Amino acid sequence: MRRSAKTRLTGSQRIDPSARISPRAILGSDVVVGPFTIIGDNVSIGENTVIQDHCSIGASGSARPLTIGRNSTIRSHSVIYCGSTFGDGLETGHHVVIRENSRVGLNMRIGNFSDLEGDCVIGDFCRLHGYAHVGKGSRIGDFAWIYSLVTLTNDPLPPSSVLDPVTVGDGCVICVGATLLPGTVLGRGAFVSAGSIAHGHVPDGAVIHGPDGCAVNHVSSLMHPAKGLRHPWMRHYTGKYPQSAKRRLERLQKDILASRNAPDTQI
Amino acid sequence: MRRSAKTRLTGSQRIDPSARISPRAILGSDVVVGPFTIIGDNVSIGENTVIQDHCSIGASGSARPLTIGRNSTIRSHSVIYCGSTFGDGLETGHHVVIRENSRVGLNMRIGNFSDLEGDCVIGDFCRLHGYAHVGKGSRIGDFAWIYSLVTLTNDPLPPSSVLDPVTVGDGCVICVGATLLPGTVLGRGAFVSAGSIAHGHVPDGAVIHGPDGCAVNHVSSLMHPAKGLRHPWMRHYTGKYPQSAKRRLERLQKDILASRNAPDTQI
Amino acid sequence: MRRSAKTRLTGSQRIDPSARISPRAILGSDVVVGPFTIIGDNVSIGENTVIQDHCSIGASGSARPLTIGRNSTIRSHSVIYCGSTFGDGLETGHHVVIRENSRVGLNMRIGNFSDLEGDCVIGDFCRLHGYAHVGKGSRIGDFAWIYSLVTLTNDPLPPSSVLDPVTVGDGCVICVGATLLPGTVLGRGAFVSAGSIAHGHVPDGAVIHGPDGCAVNHVSSLMHPAKGLRHPWMRHYTGKYPQSAKRRLERLQKDILASRNAPDTQI
Repeated sequence: MRRSAKTRLTGSQRIDPSARISPRAILGSDVVVGPFTIIGDNVSIGENTVIQDHCSIGASGSARPLTIGRNSTIRSHSVIYCGSTFGDGLETGHHVVIRENSRVGLNMRIGNFSDLEGDCVIGDFCRLHGYAHVGKGSRIGDFAWIYSLVTLTNDPLPPSSVLDPVTVGDGCVICVGATLLPGTVLGRGAFVSAGSIAHGHVPDGAVIHGPDGCAVNHVSSLMHPAKGLRHPWMRHYTGKYPQSAKRRLERLQKDILASRNAPDTQI
Repeated sequence: MRRSAKTRLTGSQRIDPSARISPRAILGSDVVVGPFTIIGDNVSIGENTVIQDHCSIGASGSARPLTIGRNSTIRSHSVIYCGSTFGDGLETGHHVVIRENSRVGLNMRIGNFSDLEGDCVIGDFCRLHGYAHVGKGSRIGDFAWIYSLVTLTNDPLPPSSVLDPVTVGDGCVICVGATLLPGTVLGRGAFVSAGSIAHGHVPDGAVIHGPDGCAVNHVSSLMHPAKGLRHPWMRHYTGKYPQSAKRRLERLQKDILASRNAPDTQI
Repeated sequence: MRRSAKTRLTGSQRIDPSARISPRAILGSDVVVGPFTIIGDNVSIGENTVIQDHCSIGASGSARPLTIGRNSTIRSHSVIYCGSTFGDGLETGHHVVIRENSRVGLNMRIGNFSDLEGDCVIGDFCRLHGYAHVGKGSRIGDFAWIYSLVTLTNDPLPPSSVLDPVTVGDGCVICVGATLLPGTVLGRGAFVSAGSIAHGHVPDGAVIHGPDGCAVNHVSSLMHPAKGLRHPWMRHYTGKYPQSAKRRLERLQKDILASRNAPDTQI
């Protein structure tokens, strides 16, 4: 571990002696870095963030700066390239790969073995589970949910050099094993059911089902009375978000409910 | 590497000097620990077990004890949380993640990149291939087979805080890319074919096929005469199990065969 | 880091001091080895190759030699077993696992979290994306494309000890989430669409679609006029291959086009 005046090293930080931290990295107060972790040049890590063991942070890619916000947790064996910006409260699983030049909002959570391929723009409070593959150039709004084994593709006729990435609206839910074909645009609050293949323009609040990606319903019809659950999901699931997000969730719920009556969602 | 009286360090152990082992960990005789591996407090590792390089064992999660049985192999880059118990003969692939508070029987094998999400109860001699995702709270019997990219879900209407995990009976076979929807209960010896989506209560010995998870057959009708294979699989595949498991496999085979005539499997 | 006369250590190499390199390994000139990487006995690495951090190279498996060609890049957290041979220009993603005894041609690229299970024969210029699982004993020709979450299986009636691996012809394209069932033989230039399950003998240039793996078309009918793309893919995508590959690609394109008129592809 090498250090220089540029690295703010305070008594409140806990840096494992085996960690390899560039003297040019900036670490906020109370940052914790685990054993065998590498932190490269041009990395800035906000206060109170924990980087666990065996990670490579800002050690690959361009010389552009990497900024990780405050109060974040990067779990072990994760790889984050240079050139991206993450808001406060980032939380990664283990063995995550995040490539260069993405702009990510507040409190993204991205699960074990997920792969964010670079040049993405992602809003606040997004949740990605494991083995989620977000293709290069994807656009994801706020409050989106992307479950395990979901793939956001971008090549319209593989293999080609044409990039036709997908767009995921605020509050969308993409269930386990679903695929978004290149150029898919999911409207706000759309719901893609498990194993479905979505494509084209999907109206706000539409439920997509099956290998042909048909819109079969509006999310407000999704419910599980025995368990007390009803969509849009903001009705039954807001407890895990901070107070500051509540108003935004209420507004989003109202908008998605209103989309029931929009002409392009008369399914 | 720090050591104390509490760690039984005998001449028969081979601990790489770069490994970071808590002085509170208990290592049995002949244990091998590879380079750059971390072993946390409250970890107990049975004799003759090999922990390869770049692992994090008991370094995350609660302060509850982690017990790994004898004659086990943990392959490189694996992460095992605190609070679980594994019987003898555990074998993991590379880059495996196993979260807290699971109870696992004898000789589980879990393949590369698989993810066991915690609070699970798993019987003896289970085999999981790669990229298998076992959701929190899953129950798996003895002798189950779970192939690559299989997901055991638990959220009945995602996202919610309701946990409705799945149950997999003894001797079940879940083929590549299959999904078990929340609350699925697979009867003993059920077979879920590649890419299928199973749900609800599946009778003993039923074959599930397709995106709607229909029961199409009884496993005793599955055969491959040219290759000399016939289900239940214990007919053609027992050579890899220890002698002590043979009687249990014979009994299980007999039970599954008998389920052909059960009223709820007249398909 | 231990060294002996056998390791060619020149001033042009850059070996991180924390790397653990066997004194029996042979490293070419200008090789770079990152922090916390392990290189075992009997490993030979060609000149100008970069092995990033946290890798295990030739540290598992048999005592058979592992040969990695020149100008290769092995990204972080990768695991490569003993006993395989890779041509020049190998490029791996992060967290890749490659097991023993495979023979791989020139310039293979294999993406993050992919798993090559051993005893495979793979031609030149193959491209595998992330989470690709290549079962033991698979045969893959030249210029094949295998996208994310594709599985090449090999067990005809799981679980069994019978090995019935797949064969992938030159120039094939296997799209995201597709599965090749055991014994599948894909003719040259075949195209398997996203999420399909292929089986049996697939004619040259056939397009496979859907869960039953039906041949629905010839690849020459696949086009995306708005984007200027038309199959066979060598028409619109050759820029990323070296000049030396161009003649081979032209010949392959011609052969695949000619297969339109072959009697077994009159679909």
